[in-house]
Amino acid sequence: MKTEKIYFGAAYYDEYMPVSRVEEDMRLMKEAGMNVIRVAESTWSTWEPRDGEFDFSSLHRMLRGAKKYGIDVIVGTPTYAIPPWLARKYPDILADTHAGPSKYGHRQNMDITHPGYRFHCERIIRALLEQVQEYDNVIGFQLDNETKPYDTCGPRAQALFKKWLMDKFGSVENLNQAFGLAYWSNCLGCWDDLPDVRGTINNSLAAEFEAFQRNLVTEFLLWQRAIVDEYRRPEQFVTHNFDYEWRDYSHALQPDADQFQAAEAVTVAGCDIYHPTAAYLTGAEISFGGDLARGLKHGQNFFVLETQAQGPVGRLPWPGQLRLQAFAHLANGANMVEYWHWHSIHNAIESHWKGVLSHDFTPGAVYQEVKTIGADFARIGSHLVNLKRHSEVAFVVSNRSLTGLKHSYAFAGPNYGDILRWLYDAFFRLNISVDIVDDSVRDFSAYKLVVTPGLYCTEDSLLEALREYVKKGGHLLSSFRSFFCDENVKIRTSCQPGGLTDVFGMTYDNFTVPVEVPGAREWMELLRPENAQTLRHYAHPAYQDYACVTHHRFGKGSAAYIGTMLEDRELERLLTELLPKMGIGVPEYRWPLIIKEGTNGQQKKVRYVLNYSAKENQYRAPENCRELLTDRKVRRGETLDIAPWGLAVLE
Amino acid sequence: MKTEKIYFGAAYYDEYMPVSRVEEDMRLMKEAGMNVIRVAESTWSTWEPRDGEFDFSSLHRMLRGAKKYGIDVIVGTPTYAIPPWLARKYPDILADTHAGPSKYGHRQNMDITHPGYRFHCERIIRALLEQVQEYDNVIGFQLDNETKPYDTCGPRAQALFKKWLMDKFGSVENLNQAFGLAYWSNCLGCWDDLPDVRGTINNSLAAEFEAFQRNLVTEFLLWQRAIVDEYRRPEQFVTHNFDYEWRDYSHALQPDADQFQAAEAVTVAGCDIYHPTAAYLTGAEISFGGDLARGLKHGQNFFVLETQAQGPVGRLPWPGQLRLQAFAHLANGANMVEYWHWHSIHNAIESHWKGVLSHDFTPGAVYQEVKTIGADFARIGSHLVNLKRHSEVAFVVSNRSLTGLKHSYAFAGPNYGDILRWLYDAFFRLNISVDIVDDSVRDFSAYKLVVTPGLYCTEDSLLEALREYVKKGGHLLSSFRSFFCDENVKIRTSCQPGGLTDVFGMTYDNFTVPVEVPGAREWMELLRPENAQTLRHYAHPAYQDYACVTHHRFGKGSAAYIGTMLEDRELERLLTELLPKMGIGVPEYRWPLIIKEGTNGQQKKVRYVLNYSAKENQYRAPENCRELLTDRKVRRGETLDIAPWGLAVLE
Amino acid sequence: MKTEKIYFGAAYYDEYMPVSRVEEDMRLMKEAGMNVIRVAESTWSTWEPRDGEFDFSSLHRMLRGAKKYGIDVIVGTPTYAIPPWLARKYPDILADTHAGPSKYGHRQNMDITHPGYRFHCERIIRALLEQVQEYDNVIGFQLDNETKPYDTCGPRAQALFKKWLMDKFGSVENLNQAFGLAYWSNCLGCWDDLPDVRGTINNSLAAEFEAFQRNLVTEFLLWQRAIVDEYRRPEQFVTHNFDYEWRDYSHALQPDADQFQAAEAVTVAGCDIYHPTAAYLTGAEISFGGDLARGLKHGQNFFVLETQAQGPVGRLPWPGQLRLQAFAHLANGANMVEYWHWHSIHNAIESHWKGVLSHDFTPGAVYQEVKTIGADFARIGSHLVNLKRHSEVAFVVSNRSLTGLKHSYAFAGPNYGDILRWLYDAFFRLNISVDIVDDSVRDFSAYKLVVTPGLYCTEDSLLEALREYVKKGGHLLSSFRSFFCDENVKIRTSCQPGGLTDVFGMTYDNFTVPVEVPGAREWMELLRPENAQTLRHYAHPAYQDYACVTHHRFGKGSAAYIGTMLEDRELERLLTELLPKMGIGVPEYRWPLIIKEGTNGQQKKVRYVLNYSAKENQYRAPENCRELLTDRKVRRGETLDIAPWGLAVLE
Repeated sequence: MKTEKIYFGAAYYDEYMPVSRVEEDMRLMKEAGMNVIRVAESTWSTWEPRDGEFDFSSLHRMLRGAKKYGIDVIVGTPTYAIPPWLARKYPDILADTHAGPSKYGHRQNMDITHPGYRFHCERIIRALLEQVQEYDNVIGFQLDNETKPYDTCGPRAQALFKKWLMDKFGSVENLNQAFGLAYWSNCLGCWDDLPDVRGTINNSLAAEFEAFQRNLVTEFLLWQRAIVDEYRRPEQFVTHNFDYEWRDYSHALQPDADQFQAAEAVTVAGCDIYHPTAAYLTGAEISFGGDLARGLKHGQNFFVLETQAQGPVGRLPWPGQLRLQAFAHLANGANMVEYWHWHSIHNAIESHWKGVLSHDFTPGAVYQEVKTIGADFARIGSHLVNLKRHSEVAFVVSNRSLTGLKHSYAFAGPNYGDILRWLYDAFFRLNISVDIVDDSVRDFSAYKLVVTPGLYCTEDSLLEALREYVKKGGHLLSSFRSFFCDENVKIRTSCQPGGLTDVFGMTYDNFTVPVEVPGAREWMELLRPENAQTLRHYAHPAYQDYACVTHHRFGKGSAAYIGTMLEDRELERLLTELLPKMGIGVPEYRWPLIIKEGTNGQQKKVRYVLNYSAKENQYRAPENCRELLTDRKVRRGETLDIAPWGLAVLE
Repeated sequence: MKTEKIYFGAAYYDEYMPVSRVEEDMRLMKEAGMNVIRVAESTWSTWEPRDGEFDFSSLHRMLRGAKKYGIDVIVGTPTYAIPPWLARKYPDILADTHAGPSKYGHRQNMDITHPGYRFHCERIIRALLEQVQEYDNVIGFQLDNETKPYDTCGPRAQALFKKWLMDKFGSVENLNQAFGLAYWSNCLGCWDDLPDVRGTINNSLAAEFEAFQRNLVTEFLLWQRAIVDEYRRPEQFVTHNFDYEWRDYSHALQPDADQFQAAEAVTVAGCDIYHPTAAYLTGAEISFGGDLARGLKHGQNFFVLETQAQGPVGRLPWPGQLRLQAFAHLANGANMVEYWHWHSIHNAIESHWKGVLSHDFTPGAVYQEVKTIGADFARIGSHLVNLKRHSEVAFVVSNRSLTGLKHSYAFAGPNYGDILRWLYDAFFRLNISVDIVDDSVRDFSAYKLVVTPGLYCTEDSLLEALREYVKKGGHLLSSFRSFFCDENVKIRTSCQPGGLTDVFGMTYDNFTVPVEVPGAREWMELLRPENAQTLRHYAHPAYQDYACVTHHRFGKGSAAYIGTMLEDRELERLLTELLPKMGIGVPEYRWPLIIKEGTNGQQKKVRYVLNYSAKENQYRAPENCRELLTDRKVRRGETLDIAPWGLAVLE
Repeated sequence: MKTEKIYFGAAYYDEYMPVSRVEEDMRLMKEAGMNVIRVAESTWSTWEPRDGEFDFSSLHRMLRGAKKYGIDVIVGTPTYAIPPWLARKYPDILADTHAGPSKYGHRQNMDITHPGYRFHCERIIRALLEQVQEYDNVIGFQLDNETKPYDTCGPRAQALFKKWLMDKFGSVENLNQAFGLAYWSNCLGCWDDLPDVRGTINNSLAAEFEAFQRNLVTEFLLWQRAIVDEYRRPEQFVTHNFDYEWRDYSHALQPDADQFQAAEAVTVAGCDIYHPTAAYLTGAEISFGGDLARGLKHGQNFFVLETQAQGPVGRLPWPGQLRLQAFAHLANGANMVEYWHWHSIHNAIESHWKGVLSHDFTPGAVYQEVKTIGADFARIGSHLVNLKRHSEVAFVVSNRSLTGLKHSYAFAGPNYGDILRWLYDAFFRLNISVDIVDDSVRDFSAYKLVVTPGLYCTEDSLLEALREYVKKGGHLLSSFRSFFCDENVKIRTSCQPGGLTDVFGMTYDNFTVPVEVPGAREWMELLRPENAQTLRHYAHPAYQDYACVTHHRFGKGSAAYIGTMLEDRELERLLTELLPKMGIGVPEYRWPLIIKEGTNGQQKKVRYVLNYSAKENQYRAPENCRELLTDRKVRRGETLDIAPWGLAVLE
């Protein structure tokens, strides 16, 4: 979504405060150049302390305080954490999961299919939205927060799942055949035979249940959107805080929602991006999360609704890093950077996940650095907002593949997120811009190269689309495990790579785990080139007859295949050699110097030069331009010193 | 069991197939020299899709297809995996275990004492056996598959256990005394006081319950045998697929069944043998599994009903290994080698545990190597079948000891399987042939040496038998932890080694864990020789008064005792020095060259020379003979080059 | 408590014996110089085999046997392990815990608030105490054993907890505010909204529940004390076996009881001390456990009711260690050393936790060493008994802080026990005597230095007391994480260290985890000195603006603060430099030579010199004295050779 300015701010919770500070906080924010807060999304029990009894005094305090200081507000619906009285009212409202029934206390533990939950959600949303009608500084709404199915699989969910299967397969015979339920005597004789899915050893059934669960997220957000639409003004946006696979930080594709599908519920994509910092800040998570968020609405600008200020213990940024991070978000196409959160919380599970201010509310070192960012955004934001990115490469991501790989029986082998990030990060380090699309896409003609990391489960129509794409001149780069199964996680009976042996000019039917095979990691497919060129061999006598990487001209394009998880440096070398043959130039600079380019709202080219390093690095300007932060002209060929954890923005 | 030929084949599942291929598969098998398949044992829901409704069309398709190509068939009863309708019919049919109630989906999760389960088992077995009466290529039957008690311990099992205890002990006073229940106030005042055994901290009670559970296996298989006997022709055999302690491969004695007892239910022993491969193939698991299977029916030839083709991920064999493995099974006395399984499965938990063919059904590298084995078996099988092995050494194994050690409270100490394999593998590497017997044996006179690895729990009568055996000239080699308890896991009050201090000429009352004691591992008993000779000391000042290994002449024989888990190489050195004093010669060749000898059906001596190494090795023929694979004469003293992962068979 | 002699003995269980040996055992004890046994505390099912049916024959056998050999007896109430019939009588008597309902079998698994449990406890206690009235060798009673709340949190406990909260906070509004329940929508609308505490993510609520649970222990012991008081003679003591945080040995402060509070129930403190041995014996656990037990009754002599003889597997002492340990207990102020236990048990979970005798009852190596201790105690015990220790340093320990830190959300950071032992052990190794007091103390005037390791949660009044203490000339040494929260685990809004920035002359608002910061471990607070002196910096460019250790004169005293978990050696160096500035001298000798001093009952100074090393060490006598073990005069300046694991006692 295009916006008039860069939004810069933080989540704000007056209701968490042991003391009343709205006035003081808004003043400090204003001083730091902040212009937006997000409120209300977590605290239903404050807005409705008892069933049907509402108290929005704290909300009004925040909205009025913000208005006074010219700060805009995003209002979140508070439905992702239910109040105690609601849990008490419906003993079955908490999700029954693979790990058994959820307990009250945590957020995100309810059954989002529960009619009582839906009734009370709707009532609190309507009550809340009525309250905020009067405020012109409310610029938009956030639906719920990081919505998931919370692994709901109690009787209600299983009944819905049975219906889902009946609709999809029609008869148990079709289901038995599609999922191979004959194995270990799991064939259904009738629909009532469908067992509790939690015990299944059939990966197709398990994966289908997760697809069903993910669909609940889309359905739930669309339902909230419809309610919000009754209240919002046309200029108010609707967003959602999409978060990613969590490994103590935002790592890869979210397993529990089909975000590309769910994004239909919003007018602008929002996301969480949390990442390692201090010695471990690489920029890869910021880049990945941004590319993915930008992809959700097909290249439109997005919001970073949450990112870290001080963050959890051990994530305190080093001097300069906070600035670097903020600009890096813009470089990916973000129009908003919001910290989670303003002040640090004095109680409960996230009290050590610290905000811009520490618990003592003094404007400390982090606040001071935030202030410089705010000042810069205010000064040069009009050159940065609405950045349009251009990529020649598309990464295809797939929740079906993620789930399919998860449930594949293997003593070894990397999971989906590992494979995705292994390939993505190499492109990142090589400064090759990529878009991220999902596996529903059939028209890849906008891209020179399509990359499929671990695209394990595919519909036939996607195989066909890729064949046509290559035939017409496109290039395809696929990793091991791609195309192995159909969309039901049934392994294909055709020769591997599933149905595309002509395209790759190669086939294989054996795979194993590398042991003392130099450069190979985790998994290796023993490729047998037919017409393909072998780019790499496995350096081990037992595997001397096989290829490790192949490349094949097919139609007007070409297709390459990587049979193992090459060591990172080796993968970079391979790409540097291979990509030019696929029409993709490999830039001169490499990580830790990261270059991101785009076109700004004034149709000028903007280039970010980000130094992810504790050492100064040099960058030679490729053309005459202006460095925006220092507001000075730079001549073509001039060398810029990029400070440790520093950056330049060239227009 | 003696057979007319070597059986070579695979488990076959038409019912798992996404496409119909019986004809093509049987042709490919025939071409590969295969002559047997096993069918039907896993797929009750195919044979009886709804309660009382049978469909054996797929079975007939396989039987007819096999018959057409001259392939024999083993028919398995399909009772180890229940259909969904049966789980739905009896909500309590799934076993309630230490980990709580089982869920439907997995195989081997039912309560085998459940009357409803038994009723339906009997009905499907009878229905199945009637179907196969007409086929003369059905050569035998497999009862169930890898039967276990599945940790059933719900109310029904606990009531049966109470009865078991009443029968064994007569009164609670006897039980209290035998198990030491006074400890922590666990004495029973009456039988109804018997608590749910799952909470017990009394290792005698816990071990007794496991003995009770193991007995359920024997009882269940005998019950199935009686049913099968009503249908089988005299020449049809009955077997069972006995599997071993599982550590991602077949490791040691099966903890959950008394296989020596349960083997009474079959006419020929069968087994699973899965093992590491590629760089990790040593042959030890094949040797151990074979020796154990041969022991189950007291030295008779046995069947390898399942072993790996491609196996699970990471077990793809290197070129030559599949051949080596197949012959190694015969060298242990197997008359059948069957792969699990023919084709690779396209769905569910074992889809990556691959068979002879991959998912694309093309005859790949593994099939090609299988073909060479089939051809060799066809050509020289008559020299290999019905091999009779001769061993001078008996290893005594004991489920009571396994369970007793498991429940012994210790912060440290190796478990039973570790100790067993530690000693067994040393004999294997030294090429000393052993038989495996169980702890019910009292007459050891057929052996020169009896070895007791970790024989922790023994009846007094076994101690007495061993004393008499040594007195009359036998030799006894015992490891640490042997003889510590009686059969109820009550630690003996007599001096250790329990009641045999005169035989060993040694005693001890202290033990600990070695810390920086060179050569000692895991556990150390501080031996105090009385009349015994000290063969090894502990090299540590704190333990200088104690022996580590002792040897003692007693009567006409001798007894040695090893107080710690010596490093492997040190154990080999010790045995090389000690065994000759016990009448056992130590051969010239060592692992990786493994020599196995026996007498074939034609009463000729057959010697397998197996090279478990990626390097060529040399073997000097000890006598004039014929190398069967190459069909050429070999003169005494002639040196044979044994290829990497290769072998020779000398007759 | 002062006693007439050193008590030396063991726990004794005739009722566990497979054979009857009371007479023989008492004789052996007598011979070994033992003069006390503890009986009866574990075996309710022996004393009351069926509901209301008593059998004390075994008890009388022990009491009579002991009397015959002049051995005194401590009688324990047997209530910490319930008989099967009691578990059967009240199906809800076993505690429902965070891990679900407890199972019968284990000790310490019941709900100590259960009225049925209390009824039967009282009946068995009264029955038992009546039996022992006649014996004049019963010198005292032990209430229960190692009492805990056993994590009871079923409906009864939760109802009691609601009452506890209502009494403490008065209204839900107060509670919501104090605990910050607004976070994630956890505010209570009324008391009935209080959810099952097991699901909470609010660390204040979780910590309060644990405080409630700990209070159950105090209440329970006071209740037993009142019953026992009806029976005991004035000269009979009442004790309890307090045990410590368990990490396979007695590590630090007990988390599950407020022992300083619970000690009101006894006339003399007793404790368990178990510790590593052999190569890992350092003496630190003995010292810590003794200092803590001495603190429970404000410096009075205490009993070591249980310590290890052979101990669990791997804890077999090396020659000399048992002697060293026994005297080390006395050096801390113990008047009793009792082994757990006399003989080794032949069944159940502790059968490998061995006593003075092994399972064969022969007087082995351990017994022989015990005998030398008994002889020494008999000979010189009158010089050792009633040792009065003097310390200038007080360590403040706090269950609130322990629990608070446990529930603080952090990906990293050491727990309370780690911090406590990190600091305590440094003082131990430096031979600086300390007392241990709890956080209810407000008057520290008896000490020159107060140390607060990880004193995370404090009442304001304690902050005030410490400020006054320093102002008046006291010295305060605090570690990171001290003073962070109030007593409700609400993080303070005042500048850190919470409300004491004037005292420390320093503040901080950022902390993180050290990565490649030399000498720093686990946690680092970025201290900003105002008037304080910086004693240590963080050696890393990103943290160059901050201090790591500060020291500040305040009023007549001073306060130092350590911001990270310094490496042990670095901590010792710091203390050696810092403590003299705080009025504490640092002695010449260091670990492994440990010096403990005190005044004996004859008002003479006694000095133990303990050598925790496998090497001989030298000690120079600081004054003319007598070495009691060898009974010889030692002149000032004379050098004593202290044998490996040996000791000297100078009077």
